[in-house]
Amino acid sequence: MTRDTYAQHTSSRFDDELEKVRARILHMGGLVEKQLNQAVGGLVHGEPTLAALIAEEEREVNQLECVIDEDCSRILATRAPAASDLRLIIGILKVATDLERVGDESKKIGRLAVRLTMMDHPSQRFGELRHLAHSVASMLHDTLDALARHDADAALVIVRRDRLIDEEYESIQRQSITFMMEDPRAIRRSLDVMWAVRALERIGDHAKNICEHLIYIVRGTDVRHARSQEAAATPQSPREPNPPV
Amino acid sequence: MTRDTYAQHTSSRFDDELEKVRARILHMGGLVEKQLNQAVGGLVHGEPTLAALIAEEEREVNQLECVIDEDCSRILATRAPAASDLRLIIGILKVATDLERVGDESKKIGRLAVRLTMMDHPSQRFGELRHLAHSVASMLHDTLDALARHDADAALVIVRRDRLIDEEYESIQRQSITFMMEDPRAIRRSLDVMWAVRALERIGDHAKNICEHLIYIVRGTDVRHARSQEAAATPQSPREPNPPV
Repeated sequence: MTRDTYAQHTSSRFDDELEKVRARILHMGGLVEKQLNQAVGGLVHGEPTLAALIAEEEREVNQLECVIDEDCSRILATRAPAASDLRLIIGILKVATDLERVGDESKKIGRLAVRLTMMDHPSQRFGELRHLAHSVASMLHDTLDALARHDADAALVIVRRDRLIDEEYESIQRQSITFMMEDPRAIRRSLDVMWAVRALERIGDHAKNICEHLIYIVRGTDVRHARSQEAAATPQSPREPNPPV
Repeated sequence: MTRDTYAQHTSSRFDDELEKVRARILHMGGLVEKQLNQAVGGLVHGEPTLAALIAEEEREVNQLECVIDEDCSRILATRAPAASDLRLIIGILKVATDLERVGDESKKIGRLAVRLTMMDHPSQRFGELRHLAHSVASMLHDTLDALARHDADAALVIVRRDRLIDEEYESIQRQSITFMMEDPRAIRRSLDVMWAVRALERIGDHAKNICEHLIYIVRGTDVRHARSQEAAATPQSPREPNPPV
């Protein structure tokens, strides 16, 4: 969003308030992205102190969510925003919820990365996990970039990437089950891979949600309903991949 | 909320609008509870047509979420509500998001129930799964009851039940891993049990979130921040049970 968008506001303090909450949600996005990248780095390289680090950052993310909610409530109460300003506030409230959950999932991945570091690395499977992790991190990065640029066209394109992530997710889950059945000693490790992959897939869902909120903010259209109808046409909604097996 | 709460409104149409959106969120809650109960019934008794039924209901739930969001946006834009009315609208927006996700998780449980129905039932494990399912269904029921009665005291008590559900969840996950290691032929079945248990645990989280939104609606306090500090004191937040192993 550029300053031009605010040109109609007679109150420059209102402009400042909107800019502040917008800066906060982008800051929260940056923190969450850093958390995810650390967790993914932990999966790839191993990092025993990772879990504590990510847990500390998660507290900061949780507090930011509360602060952003308060900011939005205050703006709604004192400024009674309309049209695009109202959509911005409602959208930011929803984006904050999704970002907080990305933080939750990153924390889980961080813990699993620590446990997986202590086990043998079957390089083949970790290669696929790493690929998925990079796909998801890249999707979140582009989502936050689109949010910063207020770019609904980009958001529409990013939404479609969720389906590819779901396909990668299902492939790794199926493969993990095969490994478990072939070698019961691999069960614990395979389960940790499955939980990490599941958390990554959820982060893809949240990135998709954020893109949909952004489209609502910019265009005022609710694309979730279209997704619901799409699900009606195909029994397997891309938003909810089938659990493995 | 009673009619008295609205006494200060000079516009009876505003009262009607608030009452309508409040009725809609309770209707959405009722639908989602029905979905969960059907899914849980499927886990216990088996029901091959369950998945299609729950998927159909999920579409209705998704549409309700969109309608409620529109209602809330319109009220914010045209009525510029303040104080408790504003909290009610913000709270309902958030409750709708959590209810929609309960619907998602119930759909997953329904699909898993269909698959589990086709396998042998090791009665012992299904007994524990059934117990957890009833705990979660009861928590959701009481949450929706508190929401209908606008009862923040009840919500505060219900929030604490999430910890018990997390304990049951972790116990079943540990047990499932033991079963898998003892008998690799049980891997697929055990994984389905683990996914179902995971979905139930997530529904417990969403019920807890709804209780927290209700406390915010009634009292104006954000108890999520307290939870974040509690997490700082204990490394294992009750909101996020450790993945098994």
